[in-house]
Amino acid sequence: MRTIGWEKGKVRFLDQTRLPHEEIYVLTDDFRTVGEAIRSLRVRGAPAIGVAAAYGAALAVGTADALTLAEGRRILADAVTYLAQSRPTAVNLFAALNRISVVASHSEIATPAQLRQAILAEAEAIEREDVEACRLLALHGSELIAPHSSVLTHCNTGALATAGAGTALNVIITAHRQGKVVRVFVDETRPLLQGARLTAWELLRAGVETVLITDSTAATVLQRGMAQAVFVGADRVAANGDVANKTGTYAIASVASRHAVPFYVVAPGSSFDLKTPTGQEIPIEERDPSEVTHISGIRVAPAGVQVFSPAFDITPNQLITAIVTEMGVLRPPYGPAIEGAIGKGRVPK
Amino acid sequence: MRTIGWEKGKVRFLDQTRLPHEEIYVLTDDFRTVGEAIRSLRVRGAPAIGVAAAYGAALAVGTADALTLAEGRRILADAVTYLAQSRPTAVNLFAALNRISVVASHSEIATPAQLRQAILAEAEAIEREDVEACRLLALHGSELIAPHSSVLTHCNTGALATAGAGTALNVIITAHRQGKVVRVFVDETRPLLQGARLTAWELLRAGVETVLITDSTAATVLQRGMAQAVFVGADRVAANGDVANKTGTYAIASVASRHAVPFYVVAPGSSFDLKTPTGQEIPIEERDPSEVTHISGIRVAPAGVQVFSPAFDITPNQLITAIVTEMGVLRPPYGPAIEGAIGKGRVPK
Repeated sequence: MRTIGWEKGKVRFLDQTRLPHEEIYVLTDDFRTVGEAIRSLRVRGAPAIGVAAAYGAALAVGTADALTLAEGRRILADAVTYLAQSRPTAVNLFAALNRISVVASHSEIATPAQLRQAILAEAEAIEREDVEACRLLALHGSELIAPHSSVLTHCNTGALATAGAGTALNVIITAHRQGKVVRVFVDETRPLLQGARLTAWELLRAGVETVLITDSTAATVLQRGMAQAVFVGADRVAANGDVANKTGTYAIASVASRHAVPFYVVAPGSSFDLKTPTGQEIPIEERDPSEVTHISGIRVAPAGVQVFSPAFDITPNQLITAIVTEMGVLRPPYGPAIEGAIGKGRVPK
Repeated sequence: MRTIGWEKGKVRFLDQTRLPHEEIYVLTDDFRTVGEAIRSLRVRGAPAIGVAAAYGAALAVGTADALTLAEGRRILADAVTYLAQSRPTAVNLFAALNRISVVASHSEIATPAQLRQAILAEAEAIEREDVEACRLLALHGSELIAPHSSVLTHCNTGALATAGAGTALNVIITAHRQGKVVRVFVDETRPLLQGARLTAWELLRAGVETVLITDSTAATVLQRGMAQAVFVGADRVAANGDVANKTGTYAIASVASRHAVPFYVVAPGSSFDLKTPTGQEIPIEERDPSEVTHISGIRVAPAGVQVFSPAFDITPNQLITAIVTEMGVLRPPYGPAIEGAIGKGRVPK
């Protein structure tokens, strides 16, 4: 299974809205299809949409018959602007597009062909780095799990959410392979059910005992001591360690803290945003009301009802036991830890 | 709208599984149909199932051709046993059936006809008391709401959950009529969506501005200061003030506490169980896995997944700002407050 990738001059992605019923891959040479796939969550997960956006930009320039370098750069700039509007919260999207734009402006590029090559090479580098980050996240994160553990997770942070093997879910699956994880409780993750549809699917494929719960039931699992750790991903980590992640994360962190269950965030360097001081400044996407009023296309709520549907919430840093990165495990106080690992160290290019 | 009642020798109830699409009333003379309606949540809400069980018992004796008093009492005992097995958590069910059994054992009853009359009179008394309790709950509870308030609620605690006008939701609707509540945030309440299907329906009928949210979004509403109070019902209140209520209540109470948003439980005396010392001893019903793996009859999770689906969770007393009863508003420490109001005062018969 390859969630997102480049194949013979085209972008190929797995349509995640069809899972777990159908495993359908889409092959496209139109960057707008990539942008639309991000918007409609056919491709989702912060690292995966970063890689998708980079390949989308490569597609825009690669398929255009740009006669001059200036024309090629203009086409790229338009595609970057278009792709940047697909979703607002995951910083990976903007980080990837920024890297593409920086590469495109290099003075040694002299022809449209060189521009195409440079952008594709950078997109491939972003994918390679994501694959490597996933490997290192699992290495560092799995050390935090004790033998005979049951763990709780929210939303989907597996191979489907990245170009590699996943973030938080890959930590869990790796620890399961090490014989340490006996059972995983999976929040269904309303409204779009990424936990029920995607995480349960990935875990069962990996041979892990999987217990599906409603999002509200996470509190009971923690209260009864049924899980020894919580692992979640992140759509954006602010400079102070506040974390934007799928709606529901904050309530779980809040209850985990009451029961002294360790709460871990697993995120590659590409999900950190040092320009955003705290969680309060992270823009939170609001989703369409129909995702709440309708389920599987069937209306469940009466007409006339309003809906408030933020896709993400903010978990304050003081509720987070540690943040696992490819550079190692960060502990509070997060400001200096993040500055040291991400600000100075920077993700390897 | 009358959720549950006695009509010309039969029980009449509104089938809540059909809402909000259809308003269908069921008229039955079979007490097993009443038990099945409770089990399948066609009648739900702790006070409503207490009244339904009492009328179910009246139906069993009323429709039986009991030739002797002993025969009538045996038929009643069998029906009580059957009805008591319909759902385990809401104490109102057992309290109502216990009152019926006590009345049936009175020595002044001499004939099957007198037995039938006594039981029906007691069931009618239980209904009357519930209607009156709802009125008093609204009176006391609405005083806790300040002008210009938005409030958050979970599950359904309105007229549909009682024989009267409701518990927590009636407090909210009453305060709205008083001009104090401007907006209500309603958790959809997975897995059975009582919030989306029932509470939103009741609030819109009452002309209240209603904002539907996923259960997880309650934490964001509280974090952003969008609601000034939380009002929920109870399926059982233990002697120390711990509360069993719909799954999700505990996480909301936990987050409300972090943001100093008052968290109120509204429950008639019939929902208190002084024989249960703490929440830990309250039996929690587990629901069928298909309620989580399927929505509106459509499978959303992959085959092979396990499910853990407790219908209720336990909110510890220290997270509860006050408990509104028909005897007045109880404040911590709840042990003595409950003993004083419910243990000694007892609900008027």
